[in-house]
Amino acid sequence: MLFHVRMDVHLPHDLDPDVRADTVAREKAYSQRLQRAGKWPHLWRIAGEYSNISVFDVDSADELHDLLSALPLFPHMTIKVTPLATHPSKVTDALV
Amino acid sequence: MLFHVRMDVHLPHDLDPDVRADTVAREKAYSQRLQRAGKWPHLWRIAGEYSNISVFDVDSADELHDLLSALPLFPHMTIKVTPLATHPSKVTDALV
Amino acid sequence: MLFHVRMDVHLPHDLDPDVRADTVAREKAYSQRLQRAGKWPHLWRIAGEYSNISVFDVDSADELHDLLSALPLFPHMTIKVTPLATHPSKVTDALV
Amino acid sequence: MLFHVRMDVHLPHDLDPDVRADTVAREKAYSQRLQRAGKWPHLWRIAGEYSNISVFDVDSADELHDLLSALPLFPHMTIKVTPLATHPSKVTDALV
Amino acid sequence: MLFHVRMDVHLPHDLDPDVRADTVAREKAYSQRLQRAGKWPHLWRIAGEYSNISVFDVDSADELHDLLSALPLFPHMTIKVTPLATHPSKVTDALV
Amino acid sequence: MLFHVRMDVHLPHDLDPDVRADTVAREKAYSQRLQRAGKWPHLWRIAGEYSNISVFDVDSADELHDLLSALPLFPHMTIKVTPLATHPSKVTDALV
Amino acid sequence: MLFHVRMDVHLPHDLDPDVRADTVAREKAYSQRLQRAGKWPHLWRIAGEYSNISVFDVDSADELHDLLSALPLFPHMTIKVTPLATHPSKVTDALV
Amino acid sequence: MLFHVRMDVHLPHDLDPDVRADTVAREKAYSQRLQRAGKWPHLWRIAGEYSNISVFDVDSADELHDLLSALPLFPHMTIKVTPLATHPSKVTDALV
Amino acid sequence: MLFHVRMDVHLPHDLDPDVRADTVAREKAYSQRLQRAGKWPHLWRIAGEYSNISVFDVDSADELHDLLSALPLFPHMTIKVTPLATHPSKVTDALV
Amino acid sequence: MLFHVRMDVHLPHDLDPDVRADTVAREKAYSQRLQRAGKWPHLWRIAGEYSNISVFDVDSADELHDLLSALPLFPHMTIKVTPLATHPSKVTDALV
Repeated sequence: MLFHVRMDVHLPHDLDPDVRADTVAREKAYSQRLQRAGKWPHLWRIAGEYSNISVFDVDSADELHDLLSALPLFPHMTIKVTPLATHPSKVTDALV
Repeated sequence: MLFHVRMDVHLPHDLDPDVRADTVAREKAYSQRLQRAGKWPHLWRIAGEYSNISVFDVDSADELHDLLSALPLFPHMTIKVTPLATHPSKVTDALV
Repeated sequence: MLFHVRMDVHLPHDLDPDVRADTVAREKAYSQRLQRAGKWPHLWRIAGEYSNISVFDVDSADELHDLLSALPLFPHMTIKVTPLATHPSKVTDALV
Repeated sequence: MLFHVRMDVHLPHDLDPDVRADTVAREKAYSQRLQRAGKWPHLWRIAGEYSNISVFDVDSADELHDLLSALPLFPHMTIKVTPLATHPSKVTDALV
Repeated sequence: MLFHVRMDVHLPHDLDPDVRADTVAREKAYSQRLQRAGKWPHLWRIAGEYSNISVFDVDSADELHDLLSALPLFPHMTIKVTPLATHPSKVTDALV
Repeated sequence: MLFHVRMDVHLPHDLDPDVRADTVAREKAYSQRLQRAGKWPHLWRIAGEYSNISVFDVDSADELHDLLSALPLFPHMTIKVTPLATHPSKVTDALV
Repeated sequence: MLFHVRMDVHLPHDLDPDVRADTVAREKAYSQRLQRAGKWPHLWRIAGEYSNISVFDVDSADELHDLLSALPLFPHMTIKVTPLATHPSKVTDALV
Repeated sequence: MLFHVRMDVHLPHDLDPDVRADTVAREKAYSQRLQRAGKWPHLWRIAGEYSNISVFDVDSADELHDLLSALPLFPHMTIKVTPLATHPSKVTDALV
Repeated sequence: MLFHVRMDVHLPHDLDPDVRADTVAREKAYSQRLQRAGKWPHLWRIAGEYSNISVFDVDSADELHDLLSALPLFPHMTIKVTPLATHPSKVTDALV
Repeated sequence: MLFHVRMDVHLPHDLDPDVRADTVAREKAYSQRLQRAGKWPHLWRIAGEYSNISVFDVDSADELHDLLSALPLFPHMTIKVTPLATHPSKVTDALV
């Protein structure tokens, strides 16, 4: 099941630089693990913002919350989830 | 170049039923033409709303505006465009 | 899977009274069918507003959208869906 | 009487980790006491957010405020209360 | 139990003048009946707006919704209810 | 002349506990002095929030500002004032 | 006593042109009467909008509401009133 | 040329008291200099808020920005500027 | 003097098609006259919306309001004006 | 391709003054480099605010994000990007 997720990152300006670098590095590794596992099929940067728009493919809202709340940047992000359904005009035979 | 587009449809309740049916049918055909042409790679329904979240793949903002303003439902929609950039954590070797 | 749904009804003041009465009656019958089927376990009126707060129990966002978009009042409602997950502090042994 | 309550938690990033852990543990114990007492019949996590949607069953707004303002996390939460009334379409004979 | 209620009136400009005059007259009579019954202890006009701020004294949210939804102007109003609790600094021995 | 006032308190989490206790105690004493003087005829807690809704009875906006800006919690509050007028439907012969 | 008032005019596009012209003419005459009476000391157009920012000088909120609700355009305006107090830095000896 | 300016002051609670007192004193002196020079013809306190509504009379937006950004409290204020035009109903023969 | 102007067009869906076509044609001619006169140096379409972002170069806010309120589409637009000042980092020797 | 960019700067009040001066100086130099390179053709100050409105001319949203996220003030800014298209009424023969 697909969920549209927007994440906005707000790092405190007085965060310890080492903690910051470590958190950002762990965020990247964690994100790539989820992408490779097929859980996070789309990930885009919003131009000009420290934000992303993503699509997650999970079995349930419980699984989605477990994945999102385990993000190393979770304490510093505002997250908004929108559940997606199949669109009746979606073509299924388009080349990708 | 990718653009994230959210469209919310607000049909006037006193729209002539034939006009309405015709407009919706032309919207579907037009949308599917763009999808097959690779211009509209993602199209999802927002659960519970007469709205969609889409991603367009176009050469420029001019092309994007031409495509969107030609939507048969354009006069009855609120549209919000967000330009997307490549995310630095995006994996390129994931199976799709 | 549980979804929190808020529905706000905005009936046009010039809607034909018979159409209105018929739509509201069909809405009630439809709602009660879904409740009896276990799809709509919670339904509350927001005090002072022509609005409700509901919880739906469905298999997927697709099923949720199908149920909601078939509501007779759907063209006259603003609907906002919020996906719910299990809360880690939820007790499971409380008497109900 | 039922009240719909949304709570959003905003923990300061420089909160002492021991204070934080202790506060969160006391919050959980307190919440479960109220659930077992029948005062807090519904508690759901909002997927992707450090927030919950709850329903409280209390005798009065005074009792509700006493219960909410005693939450260990109260100083770090934004809370929004909505009073609920019986919905005229609510079925009372549905299996739960 | 006390509830704070704000009502904003939006009369359609093409409402039949007789319907309008009759509705406003019935609203006034209904409001005064509730005031005399002690259900509507405070009623103020917001300066410059076709709006009021009121306090209702009722036994439950169900009673509140019944009273409000029976207002002749209900279909043309936006209503927002806020539940009130006793303030710990409230003096009870002040002259009124 | 009556003014509707909403006050939302936001105490900094790192405020010195003694300063905090002293400020809150002075706020209570000050508030009760104004209530006994007939300047602050209504004071209610908003259920679930560190906020109040009040009505002040003063001679002018100047007097109102002097009273409000002297609140010990004034530096930590968001205040919104709404001027009230007599409502034409207000009954004057109701028992209170 | 001074009140800051913002008025935004929203004339229905299908208003009868004669009714419209007559209403606007009566609005102007009424406004100028109040200005000459010293009740409406400041009146500015917001550049680019069918809106004005005004300051009224009245004895009470009741008088303010009577004056504003008698505006011929009142049914087509959104009005927001802000009570003004004397600023402690205001010089009283400036040339005007 | 006239500009409507709203300023909301947000002083950090941990600002050094001497810095604070000095800044506020310089703000007052600076404001009074501009008022005496005819640049700042109107200055009102918003009742209940640490905010003011002002009207500036300057030659250009450049001059306005220079004056505002030199306010000692500028780093702690949210400022919103609205350009004012002559209102067609404004009387020019009223006594002031 | 430069003003940033955003215009959002909302044409009523039941506007007579001939009136509509005539208004849009007059809007275009009027806009081009102002552009050729140097009053309207920048005009861009917001991608995906029936809206534009413009910069006007005028002598005063009065002139700006006269130009904008004479737009044939003025009754159907929401307009927001922002006064612009010279930016201190602006280079003046860049090739254009 | 043109993008409209609004940047609002929020410098923490406890930022080290040397860090602050250095960051602002680097911001200015960086901005002027991009202007001279033709990437940042328009840059205006919003009168009264520590904000600017800019237009960027870049090859893609990726390039735009690279340029913006490298701004020395980027961690302290809120940025909002709007993609611009050619307006059909834009004259191309106006003198500039």
